[in-house]
Amino acid sequence: MSVRIFAGSRPIDGAPANDRGLAYGDGLFETMRADRGGLPWFERHWGRLSEGAARLRMGLPDRALVETNIHEMLADGGDGVLKLLVTRGAGSRGYGGAVGIEPTWMLSRHPLSPPARADGLRVRWCDTRLGVQPLLAGIKHCNRLEQVLARGEWSGGDWDEGLVRDTDGNVVSATSANLFVLRDGRWRTPRVDRCGVAGICRGWVLETVGASEAILSMDDVGRADALVLTNAVRGILPVARLGDRAWPPHPATRELQRRLAAEHPAFNPAFNEDLA
Amino acid sequence: MSVRIFAGSRPIDGAPANDRGLAYGDGLFETMRADRGGLPWFERHWGRLSEGAARLRMGLPDRALVETNIHEMLADGGDGVLKLLVTRGAGSRGYGGAVGIEPTWMLSRHPLSPPARADGLRVRWCDTRLGVQPLLAGIKHCNRLEQVLARGEWSGGDWDEGLVRDTDGNVVSATSANLFVLRDGRWRTPRVDRCGVAGICRGWVLETVGASEAILSMDDVGRADALVLTNAVRGILPVARLGDRAWPPHPATRELQRRLAAEHPAFNPAFNEDLA
Repeated sequence: MSVRIFAGSRPIDGAPANDRGLAYGDGLFETMRADRGGLPWFERHWGRLSEGAARLRMGLPDRALVETNIHEMLADGGDGVLKLLVTRGAGSRGYGGAVGIEPTWMLSRHPLSPPARADGLRVRWCDTRLGVQPLLAGIKHCNRLEQVLARGEWSGGDWDEGLVRDTDGNVVSATSANLFVLRDGRWRTPRVDRCGVAGICRGWVLETVGASEAILSMDDVGRADALVLTNAVRGILPVARLGDRAWPPHPATRELQRRLAAEHPAFNPAFNEDLA
Repeated sequence: MSVRIFAGSRPIDGAPANDRGLAYGDGLFETMRADRGGLPWFERHWGRLSEGAARLRMGLPDRALVETNIHEMLADGGDGVLKLLVTRGAGSRGYGGAVGIEPTWMLSRHPLSPPARADGLRVRWCDTRLGVQPLLAGIKHCNRLEQVLARGEWSGGDWDEGLVRDTDGNVVSATSANLFVLRDGRWRTPRVDRCGVAGICRGWVLETVGASEAILSMDDVGRADALVLTNAVRGILPVARLGDRAWPPHPATRELQRRLAAEHPAFNPAFNEDLA
């Protein structure tokens, strides 16, 4: 992992001990797919980061300085994952101790995860529910204990992901991906105005294929003709199994993957063409 | 601010860049009042920390090593605030990347804040609501964006604290203190099983004066005969004003402060004896 850390525009050796990110999760992050030395969705990621900063009333680093450092870190022209973390900065003790401070920010480069299972993901239901908090819904903030708890419900290789519901019982997403549900030829995805994250790949699907946002129950998901998970690092991933319910590959999923691959060259369909 | 940071039992120079505290707020903290070189409520703080670690399924550092370092940091016999922060540790990217890691922990010593207003606190209602999440309620975890947003609703010296409600409208606490409400000679405090923090001083009051936990509305608070805020650093603080409603000093508040001062010598009543 290569890392660069800054206080405002000044490089620093490590996160300050009194950083509000460490104290309170008082920050935002973006996890971006690097492809041949570039970040094809950087504009979308920066847009969500800006929305998050406005909602949390915190500052962002200078965009040009961030982009310069990204280019330098990807100068080998390679692939991988680039994570940008921005906190409100180092401040005094207490929730209010953030007057006149500059953001701490960090870029780290990571290798790609192994490719997803070629025949589709095996997904389970999580018991952990997400609390309803409209003030934090949609943005990618650093208060992620709910996701940590949900992901901690299983270990080992039997399951690839888990679906989570909110405390009212509505389906929200997977622990680190959004969910799309196909029914009667239409893709739908849970709303993210009460909890959940407005994923970057989710946004692309909503704009591109005329999918819609909806309130979805467990039954809606179980009755689907096809399910996919979406995420900015791994693209569109078909679900082969949810608990003991299985789905064969669906042509609409393959069509979605083809359209994404045409826009974002990193995302060639991961599944076996022979299965479609 | 003096600071000591450890990875497990090994001193380190700073928080790791890939620490899960920084990434996800994946940790716990305790803010403790130091008095003449000691921490009179350390046993209570360690108990809450242990409960939090069990709930989050994370490890804690060796208690004896923590206590040794606390004694060394307070060896001047002085007063102040000692903060203990424990994160799940440094791990790989992703919510699940925490297998076999050791906790990162940090002790920092801070000066006491200026004393509270002698004639009682001026308190306001916050618009920010707390989401309902029983899995995280009661423990002092590091996902504190809700408190940061609530505390950010005011600046300047007109208000000392703000009261917050949950998304159902029930009163929970102040942004960094618990609330007790006196009515017909009985102290009551909001339950903390759906959101909020089980404060250390709150626990002492519940045990000592036969106060009870309750579901409290804004009206219940407005109709109170007296209000106090409690916190482990500042003890029991009378509320003089909530919005435009004012309360004169109440003998029951003074009695509560006297009992606390008898148990925990740091907390001599801050208010003017002549007012009672």
